[in-house]
Amino acid sequence: MFSGLSAFPLTPMSEQGIDEAAFVRLIEQLVTANVDSIGVLGSTGNYAYLTMDGRARVVRLAIEHAGDVPVMVGIGALRTRDVLTLAEDAEVAGASGVLLAPMSYQKLLPDEVFGLYKTVTHALSVPLCVYDNPGTTQFIFSDELHGQIAHLPNVASIKIPGVPEDPTEARSRVEALRARIPSNVNLGVSGDAFAATGLNAGCDAWYSVIGGVFPATALAITRAAQAGNAQEATRLSKRLQPLWELFNESGGSLRVVAAAAELQGLAEPPCLPLPLKTLDKEGRRRLANLIDELDLS
Amino acid sequence: MFSGLSAFPLTPMSEQGIDEAAFVRLIEQLVTANVDSIGVLGSTGNYAYLTMDGRARVVRLAIEHAGDVPVMVGIGALRTRDVLTLAEDAEVAGASGVLLAPMSYQKLLPDEVFGLYKTVTHALSVPLCVYDNPGTTQFIFSDELHGQIAHLPNVASIKIPGVPEDPTEARSRVEALRARIPSNVNLGVSGDAFAATGLNAGCDAWYSVIGGVFPATALAITRAAQAGNAQEATRLSKRLQPLWELFNESGGSLRVVAAAAELQGLAEPPCLPLPLKTLDKEGRRRLANLIDELDLS
Repeated sequence: MFSGLSAFPLTPMSEQGIDEAAFVRLIEQLVTANVDSIGVLGSTGNYAYLTMDGRARVVRLAIEHAGDVPVMVGIGALRTRDVLTLAEDAEVAGASGVLLAPMSYQKLLPDEVFGLYKTVTHALSVPLCVYDNPGTTQFIFSDELHGQIAHLPNVASIKIPGVPEDPTEARSRVEALRARIPSNVNLGVSGDAFAATGLNAGCDAWYSVIGGVFPATALAITRAAQAGNAQEATRLSKRLQPLWELFNESGGSLRVVAAAAELQGLAEPPCLPLPLKTLDKEGRRRLANLIDELDLS
Repeated sequence: MFSGLSAFPLTPMSEQGIDEAAFVRLIEQLVTANVDSIGVLGSTGNYAYLTMDGRARVVRLAIEHAGDVPVMVGIGALRTRDVLTLAEDAEVAGASGVLLAPMSYQKLLPDEVFGLYKTVTHALSVPLCVYDNPGTTQFIFSDELHGQIAHLPNVASIKIPGVPEDPTEARSRVEALRARIPSNVNLGVSGDAFAATGLNAGCDAWYSVIGGVFPATALAITRAAQAGNAQEATRLSKRLQPLWELFNESGGSLRVVAAAAELQGLAEPPCLPLPLKTLDKEGRRRLANLIDELDLS
């Protein structure tokens, strides 16, 4: 796992609870599309908005319906003790790996983040992906800290938050980070607009938001890059520029992919937990046009 | 309530649970010092790190031991439905007011934040203080949005994150915000280093972190400002400059006041939930010296 396309599905939910049927539909769509792995309860999977019991339920449903596709499970929480519980729940349920962000309310210090990963990796029996997402966690990893954490047991991957736009700078960025980490730890790019550039620059995986709702579109980019066809991967990604712009104008990707799941009849609207809202009428109109014009699927 | 010194005590806790005896000691110290109000489960009260049940328990303990001192309760949560539950728990327990931050994992949009306050204020029967704390919530209020929210029912106060250092600029800042809000909504300053300047600039309250552990020290500053003795309030605050510096070097005030509670024998170390840590040996030595030299109490 942790290479190729890792698709991150939404966990659709309302004020009444998790929409389990919709979640299973999303998982089944990913299995049919034959993605390389599924990352449940990532940021797109709304892990932060669910109870411990709700998360355990989502994990069981995902693994039950994922067939042979490996499932990685987000185990981030504000408290170390909850992370440990979530890690155990994921392992018991049969997860192939776990994903851990240094989720914060009080901004964490580097020593605290290292302590979190140290405690958790020593308790694990499956591989862990370090989830570097300053936009939601408020924590900025230094390369030095990435290097220290990457040497802990069971660390298998780092999910990085994008790469520079310029291909040469992107390659330098990937190489600089790789120089700090053991060869058995790989790198996955996130921030969908950066995916083609990241894969072309040598990232092993794309931890993908659009992969969770438009797996065929994301697979086409991934497979082009994996085949060494950097130009085609870039072309396929640039074609989606209006979608990346909609992400930027909507406060990120989550509200857009939630609206996409709704528009495609995969989830009942509204499928995000309040106070979060999916796209308004105008945003939905734009998105519906994009799905049609760009043939997103 | 919502004027003068509002002291925000820590909720001491370990991996095993809330240290209820220590929390009660902190509340009793505030009652003895005769603070104007107590704000439990603020950021310093570690609201984000507790379960719903744990929070309800803290509220009951606080109100049981607060005597005649009004208690304001932090009801922030990532989901609107949890905020509504916490608001009801606080009201039933006898809280005099509630404090609500737009807590986030996904950065919230202004329309989402307005929706949160609208839903919650319509359900309330006690006054609400809007908690503006971009450092932990990632949300930056515009003055326009503050104005819109301040016109909702039951809004009584805004807890602002500091004021400019310059007294004239601080007064302009307070007046600009006041011009947007109804006259029945007051302003409270937070960020302890800004408190004297904020009170001198016309803020009605100081929502105080050090007030939770050094109430006499915080009261001296508050009473000087309330008596119109701006110079004395400023002098008393400037005296604490080494403490403000320790806050800055420790990733904020929380780790310092937690260590202070430990050093004073009010809480068992370590009293913060992992991955958060209180001060290291060197920090504790510095803090112990400051408590002594500055006669913090």
